[in-house]
Amino acid sequence: MSDSTVAASSERTPQVVVDDAEIFAAHGGGKLSVGLKTPLDSQRALSIAYTPGVAQVSRAIAGDHTLAAKYTWANRLVAVVSDGSAVLGLGDIGPAASLPVMEGKSALFKTFGGLDSIPIVLATKDPDEIIETLIRLRPTFGAVNLEDISAPRCFEIERRAIEALDCPVMHDDQHGTAIVVLAALLGACKALDRDMHTLKIVISGAGAAGVACANILLAAGILDVTVLDSKGIVHSGRDDLNPFKAELAGRSNPRALTGGIAEAVAGADMFLGLSAGLVPEEIIATMAPRGIVFALSNPDPEIHPDAARRHAAVVATGRSDFPNQINNVLAFPGVFRGALDAHARRITEGMKVAAAQAIFSVVGDDLTTDHIVPSALDPRVGPAVAAAVAEASTV
Amino acid sequence: MSDSTVAASSERTPQVVVDDAEIFAAHGGGKLSVGLKTPLDSQRALSIAYTPGVAQVSRAIAGDHTLAAKYTWANRLVAVVSDGSAVLGLGDIGPAASLPVMEGKSALFKTFGGLDSIPIVLATKDPDEIIETLIRLRPTFGAVNLEDISAPRCFEIERRAIEALDCPVMHDDQHGTAIVVLAALLGACKALDRDMHTLKIVISGAGAAGVACANILLAAGILDVTVLDSKGIVHSGRDDLNPFKAELAGRSNPRALTGGIAEAVAGADMFLGLSAGLVPEEIIATMAPRGIVFALSNPDPEIHPDAARRHAAVVATGRSDFPNQINNVLAFPGVFRGALDAHARRITEGMKVAAAQAIFSVVGDDLTTDHIVPSALDPRVGPAVAAAVAEASTV
Repeated sequence: MSDSTVAASSERTPQVVVDDAEIFAAHGGGKLSVGLKTPLDSQRALSIAYTPGVAQVSRAIAGDHTLAAKYTWANRLVAVVSDGSAVLGLGDIGPAASLPVMEGKSALFKTFGGLDSIPIVLATKDPDEIIETLIRLRPTFGAVNLEDISAPRCFEIERRAIEALDCPVMHDDQHGTAIVVLAALLGACKALDRDMHTLKIVISGAGAAGVACANILLAAGILDVTVLDSKGIVHSGRDDLNPFKAELAGRSNPRALTGGIAEAVAGADMFLGLSAGLVPEEIIATMAPRGIVFALSNPDPEIHPDAARRHAAVVATGRSDFPNQINNVLAFPGVFRGALDAHARRITEGMKVAAAQAIFSVVGDDLTTDHIVPSALDPRVGPAVAAAVAEASTV
Repeated sequence: MSDSTVAASSERTPQVVVDDAEIFAAHGGGKLSVGLKTPLDSQRALSIAYTPGVAQVSRAIAGDHTLAAKYTWANRLVAVVSDGSAVLGLGDIGPAASLPVMEGKSALFKTFGGLDSIPIVLATKDPDEIIETLIRLRPTFGAVNLEDISAPRCFEIERRAIEALDCPVMHDDQHGTAIVVLAALLGACKALDRDMHTLKIVISGAGAAGVACANILLAAGILDVTVLDSKGIVHSGRDDLNPFKAELAGRSNPRALTGGIAEAVAGADMFLGLSAGLVPEEIIATMAPRGIVFALSNPDPEIHPDAARRHAAVVATGRSDFPNQINNVLAFPGVFRGALDAHARRITEGMKVAAAQAIFSVVGDDLTTDHIVPSALDPRVGPAVAAAVAEASTV
């Protein structure tokens, strides 16, 4: 470590050090439990919750299917659905290995959104089979959080699930990330007193998060967004782009840049890292003054935040041990909670932007360049996002 | 009511009277909740249960899939699966209307078996699609309780699910009922000092429960079992039998009876009602002396227990407000718990018989003709059944 790194580190939140033994012990038997709202401790309780009482409820729903929303948990139950094809930074590790993440997601839904949810991990990666399965499971849940599904399959699967299911569906790796990035960008621009719309933004990564972030930033009125994939700048002259990247090429990169990360970052105002690819400090050094770096790869940011801080005015990562942690948990619990509270059938772009603004608003007067987003543990965020999303769903 | 009915009623447990308003209020929002084993109330807790800690666990499972059993809840999670095609006595009311029953089942699994479970209700009744869906969901759960699936589809679906999934699978309407019926019959025979094997038994109903009860009674060594469906006695001369009934005809009805319920019941030692069809008291009056009547249709038994008691020495129903309540909850929580405790891949006939014997054994010295089975609320039953089933799984 250089001296400057050590100096910068002294300002950090202490890193949480947890050894593997403690992590594995905490996961023993899984992290979730299904409980009863009312104990079955008497003949009377049994007669109400099960036979003969339950027959009255089933009969009523049979006569009017809309009553299922009132008398079962399904209408507000979130299915956390994954095929395990793009889990964290681990890649295609399969459904069984993805389950600890999905259990964690359910725990976050409960803690920050007050929502019940169940992990559903699928032994198929075929989009047709995934959609077909969700349609068959439809009466079981009230919303679908797609999770850790690889790009570009995730785009088709989300689009078709939204079309096929009359309930809120969101791929969190895309839109949860995009919402929090937009929220953090609102915070960064306010802290720096900069106009978001005139920024030159470079996005490294054209997977689920990269494409969704490009979309929300373009939708927010930012004109100059350039996206990089592993082959370099995504531009219309390339013939190796999948349909999603080709479509994005047509809407981004207004200066028609070509080349690689050096060409893209030179003179840029913001670098948004959403891939596991490291970025040399020399390249970040070529950014325009008063720049913004969000290096969100986990657990290892594209550039160490101390290094980035030498060249940029605001630096954010996905890590809890540095300032400005950008974490999806700020978005998805409140987004689904708000959509379900409002009985929304879709999670619209307007609802996503409202969620970002709500996250930004919670920071309030505490805003500084080292505090552009609320803490992941801030209990005000979930309710604020839910209220904003519910409100936006009705307009 | 006749005087004798009133007299007999005075011996009953008071009927639990619950008005509809209370039942519906208790079902508001559903009966289940997904909770966290450990609260996410600190950065440290987040780092353990979610990123970055969870990545260690997912990576470990990716390297060794058997570790999913240790570090997720799936291996001991029971999926309570229904297509809503034969719900209680209500018939084919569909998956949404079946959900209150499935939630109740999950509540019973937790209360009496200490097992987590999730309702999975399917918007398909096609056996191929149900099996295919369960195969795709396989990494999500550790056992399948099939529930309220109509006959004869339930026989094929259960058989194919057992073949397709390397985990315990049981259709409770078949085998849960059969186990408790066998347990109650062991109790009745001991209370009456009768030899079970020489009884002439008539089963009214050739659906899921009827066929399974015939099978377990025949397997227990009872020689004279006659089954009735809605058309009368199931016998080899009929040409209107589905393959399951035709097969049963070849193994039952050793006296080659023909005709209807009057012909079947005349001189019988036991009447086992497993259909919604009422049986006139005059017919029950033709049974042999010291007879046994299990009238298990819910909520209305095939014959009122007071009427049956005038002609039979032991009477049982599915109702909690009369003596001898025969309720599947005595069986299924312990059966699944024992199978999962023992890491059994199948629930064998031997495990089912062991479950019945365990239920019977709990009654112990309290056995009388009005107490042939334990109370549905007896906390000793689940652990006793689980231990017996686990023991039987290893032999």
